[in-house]
Amino acid sequence: MPTPATGVFAPVVTPFRRDYRPDSGRLVAHCRRLLDRQVGLALFGTTSEANSLSVDERLELLDRILGAGIDPGRLMPGTGCTAFTDTARLTHASVRHGCMGVLMLPPFYYKGVSDEGLFRAYAEVIERVGDARLRIFLYHIPPVAQVGLGLGLIERLLKAYPGTIAGIKDSSGDWSNTKALLDAFAAEGFAVFVGSETFLLAAMRHGGAGCISASANVNPAAIHRLYAGWRSDAADGMQEEADRVRAIFQKYPMIAGLKQAIAHWSGDPEWVRLRPPLTELSQDQRRALIGELEAHGFATPWLRE
Amino acid sequence: MPTPATGVFAPVVTPFRRDYRPDSGRLVAHCRRLLDRQVGLALFGTTSEANSLSVDERLELLDRILGAGIDPGRLMPGTGCTAFTDTARLTHASVRHGCMGVLMLPPFYYKGVSDEGLFRAYAEVIERVGDARLRIFLYHIPPVAQVGLGLGLIERLLKAYPGTIAGIKDSSGDWSNTKALLDAFAAEGFAVFVGSETFLLAAMRHGGAGCISASANVNPAAIHRLYAGWRSDAADGMQEEADRVRAIFQKYPMIAGLKQAIAHWSGDPEWVRLRPPLTELSQDQRRALIGELEAHGFATPWLRE
Repeated sequence: MPTPATGVFAPVVTPFRRDYRPDSGRLVAHCRRLLDRQVGLALFGTTSEANSLSVDERLELLDRILGAGIDPGRLMPGTGCTAFTDTARLTHASVRHGCMGVLMLPPFYYKGVSDEGLFRAYAEVIERVGDARLRIFLYHIPPVAQVGLGLGLIERLLKAYPGTIAGIKDSSGDWSNTKALLDAFAAEGFAVFVGSETFLLAAMRHGGAGCISASANVNPAAIHRLYAGWRSDAADGMQEEADRVRAIFQKYPMIAGLKQAIAHWSGDPEWVRLRPPLTELSQDQRRALIGELEAHGFATPWLRE
Repeated sequence: MPTPATGVFAPVVTPFRRDYRPDSGRLVAHCRRLLDRQVGLALFGTTSEANSLSVDERLELLDRILGAGIDPGRLMPGTGCTAFTDTARLTHASVRHGCMGVLMLPPFYYKGVSDEGLFRAYAEVIERVGDARLRIFLYHIPPVAQVGLGLGLIERLLKAYPGTIAGIKDSSGDWSNTKALLDAFAAEGFAVFVGSETFLLAAMRHGGAGCISASANVNPAAIHRLYAGWRSDAADGMQEEADRVRAIFQKYPMIAGLKQAIAHWSGDPEWVRLRPPLTELSQDQRRALIGELEAHGFATPWLRE
């Protein structure tokens, strides 16, 4: 079992140009803002619209980010595709670049697949990459992928690849599932990350590793303070405050809302663009989101705080 | 509106070598068997495990198939990926090769997306390919993709791209949806294919174009006879007989069962392999499937009939 990873990570939102090409310059700037606030980079997650990018586009972005000097030791790129050949290619590149780990969706096109089939999919990638440095964080997000990762499968993977299977991001939104993961595997050093800071304090109190949360793109400092101060007397108050901000974003399509907030407070309207099939907020939604955030006192230039 | 396509198509199963590389030799041989029985080639469909192949693997297979002399006028490759850049690349290659059309899944990673977002995804591909020869058959398969294509979206696409949007494969398994599509669009020449021969006769009697069905891989001649003879007195009997064969396959995981049957009656065990996350049938399932097919009188070397 490798040394566990811990902390707060943001599934980094991906800015696009007018022609929908990924904008590596703006992406690097956003990565730096997050790193400056102690937040790690779960590049190419669901919130990053990673599956709306080709594998080549993802590899090129990774090259550019590292070429700009971003520390690979703070990078946990998402690499899980429907084809294990693609997953292996992205994973291999991430390991070669020295990334601290990868966040790996199961193949998500076929539904109702067996644990045997999912085990083989992960095993095939691990064997093909064939590198002892590989650290896989499993990605359980049934509301989107529809293909989940049960405890039996995780146990089998851990037994077969104890040096490689390093943890999980649980985006089930179901605390009882997170609790079961913590109870079953956390004591062995398996890193259980929750998929939203809403569960961060509860997770830390039960041996969790941290969170990988969409809203860490826009509220990084406060979420990191909660993580760092989870043992303090102020922890419950910090949790409540983080929840209030998250609750505002959750009223709107999440990725569009995050990009809108970044565009608004960075004064850079280019940020609002999403790749189809996702769409930007409507005029009314924009006004309502920004209005609510301002009413909450979120109008400070938080990205510079 | 282009001249409608009609007939029976098989989403061609993809054979794999021991190392999971696609086996183009066996694939070409299977394509020929299907074409000899008047069945067209919906290469790279769900049954083809297309989303378990990288885009490069699909492009290479397409090159090899055409290089082997398969008629592109009988090819309707699946090209829909989660990233529109991938979809555009596969679609562009298919058009350049002279394929009669492409079968296009919507982007299927994000769930609950808007019609506006899906419209933009299709529009972006059409604009990027920018070729008047492009014929798109929409692919509606909510049980697997989870992202479906409603009548309002289809109407909007038809209005915006009347020369390009050529039809649909309806794999909803819901006759009321197929009927609504036929009633709304078939009179204009929009080709409505059902996703199973179970609905073939009903579809033909309401202006349908044919079917694109997994079981056409193993029962091509009988399904084509039903299609060609739908106006004859024998049609109901042919439908019932095709249904009986389909019903046997439906008791087992479909793709694994098709490959098992091909392996058994072609005497070529290499055919049983599937890419993860799909798995081959168990020993018991193999015996049961082949036993049922033999009991049904399916033990004749049907691939040579």
